[in-house]
Amino acid sequence: MQIIFPINISFGDCDPAGIVFYPNAFRWMDAGFHALLRQSGGHAALCRQLGAVGMGVVDTSAKFHHPMRDGDQLELVVRLTEWSRRSFTLEYQGEVEGKRVFAGREVRCLFIRADNDIVAGETAPLRALVKEQHD
Amino acid sequence: MQIIFPINISFGDCDPAGIVFYPNAFRWMDAGFHALLRQSGGHAALCRQLGAVGMGVVDTSAKFHHPMRDGDQLELVVRLTEWSRRSFTLEYQGEVEGKRVFAGREVRCLFIRADNDIVAGETAPLRALVKEQHD
Amino acid sequence: MQIIFPINISFGDCDPAGIVFYPNAFRWMDAGFHALLRQSGGHAALCRQLGAVGMGVVDTSAKFHHPMRDGDQLELVVRLTEWSRRSFTLEYQGEVEGKRVFAGREVRCLFIRADNDIVAGETAPLRALVKEQHD
Amino acid sequence: MQIIFPINISFGDCDPAGIVFYPNAFRWMDAGFHALLRQSGGHAALCRQLGAVGMGVVDTSAKFHHPMRDGDQLELVVRLTEWSRRSFTLEYQGEVEGKRVFAGREVRCLFIRADNDIVAGETAPLRALVKEQHD
Repeated sequence: MQIIFPINISFGDCDPAGIVFYPNAFRWMDAGFHALLRQSGGHAALCRQLGAVGMGVVDTSAKFHHPMRDGDQLELVVRLTEWSRRSFTLEYQGEVEGKRVFAGREVRCLFIRADNDIVAGETAPLRALVKEQHD
Repeated sequence: MQIIFPINISFGDCDPAGIVFYPNAFRWMDAGFHALLRQSGGHAALCRQLGAVGMGVVDTSAKFHHPMRDGDQLELVVRLTEWSRRSFTLEYQGEVEGKRVFAGREVRCLFIRADNDIVAGETAPLRALVKEQHD
Repeated sequence: MQIIFPINISFGDCDPAGIVFYPNAFRWMDAGFHALLRQSGGHAALCRQLGAVGMGVVDTSAKFHHPMRDGDQLELVVRLTEWSRRSFTLEYQGEVEGKRVFAGREVRCLFIRADNDIVAGETAPLRALVKEQHD
Repeated sequence: MQIIFPINISFGDCDPAGIVFYPNAFRWMDAGFHALLRQSGGHAALCRQLGAVGMGVVDTSAKFHHPMRDGDQLELVVRLTEWSRRSFTLEYQGEVEGKRVFAGREVRCLFIRADNDIVAGETAPLRALVKEQHD
């Protein structure tokens, strides 16, 4: 599963040094993940089908190679690269004019309600739903 | 001057009520303004040419007609509607599937440095540069 | 009902002109409103008691008098100033070192579910709950 | 060098699942770093003294242990833990009511202008300025 998610970087995404305020890169990664899910009905519909609360991030990282600026057209490559029993992994490559500007990674769980808490459920039912759309 | 600026509303733009957290509408209006400026070289280039610090907002408002949600494709109509001596006005219409979801307005000044402060400069030089691109 | 809500303005709240990116002022106004509600149990508890979806903004505005910058300690005065049958109004004054930097206003409704939409419910039950805490 | 940086988590920081939208954790980490720098004069003053453009992030990560929600009072422990020749490392621990909710890490460089690009300068002069304030 892979999509390319485009982002037009704007003035308000940048900080007083004139470069992108880095937490925005995670905001774009999250938006890219949700764009990927839309191919399978979207986060809300999938959670309803699976009785889940959400697909939240438990571990994430990013490396920044080149500054991004107002007016840059970012292409974010979003790939679901790995399924494990109770989590799955996404990898992200951000490019501006063919040059890699950052790379990121998210490990996500399918959270389900349990007593007064939320816990990581099995990913198999999600994987089945997502595969259905792609086979 | 008018553009239509598209926004793909995502999960992270929404609040626990499941609808767009309203300050994001102002973030999109600002991004729409900067997209409009790009037709005339963009904010940074225009400020350099004019010796200005920025084109900041002094007065703004918005009315929200219908909730926006994750997955909505927002079309934001951005229009520069009025020039006065030391400010100019932008009007915004946000639509989802042809239905008006919000309307906004910004009054902006061209800020220039003066002593230890910034003050609203005359807008005529900006207007000339912007018109040049459109005539 | 009135509170003073403090905000430490940070680098990441500011734009390439070195001043606060203005949509953040609305983010702080919203946070001030929620801080005000906490005196009456908070938004989530109040909505549960009232069978409401949320207390959303339908109309808002702000005027910016002086730029705010990284390191400024903003004091936001939050006041609930008016109740009408299906909406209520909040007024905000932002000050840095005793100087007014911005003033804002929000009109909010108590949204309740109706068919497939959300509509503005009567504010009387909310007003009663909020008053209880203050009498 | 260590500080404890408090954050009052608000409704607008949370997503439709009712928990903190995770990129906000990075926004808070960045704000904590800038609060730490304020003890040595703040980011702007330090950059001026050092002829630097900014202290940007090149590598960052976070692990999320428990969901954070509207109304939570987050205490963020911010520590500068390591200096190397051209970068330095910050570690973050986020706690709510004494319970660890997330842990993060940032590697930052002191960026200086070089030709048409920005490059990582030596950190020794920054380290000297920061130490001065703490000795």
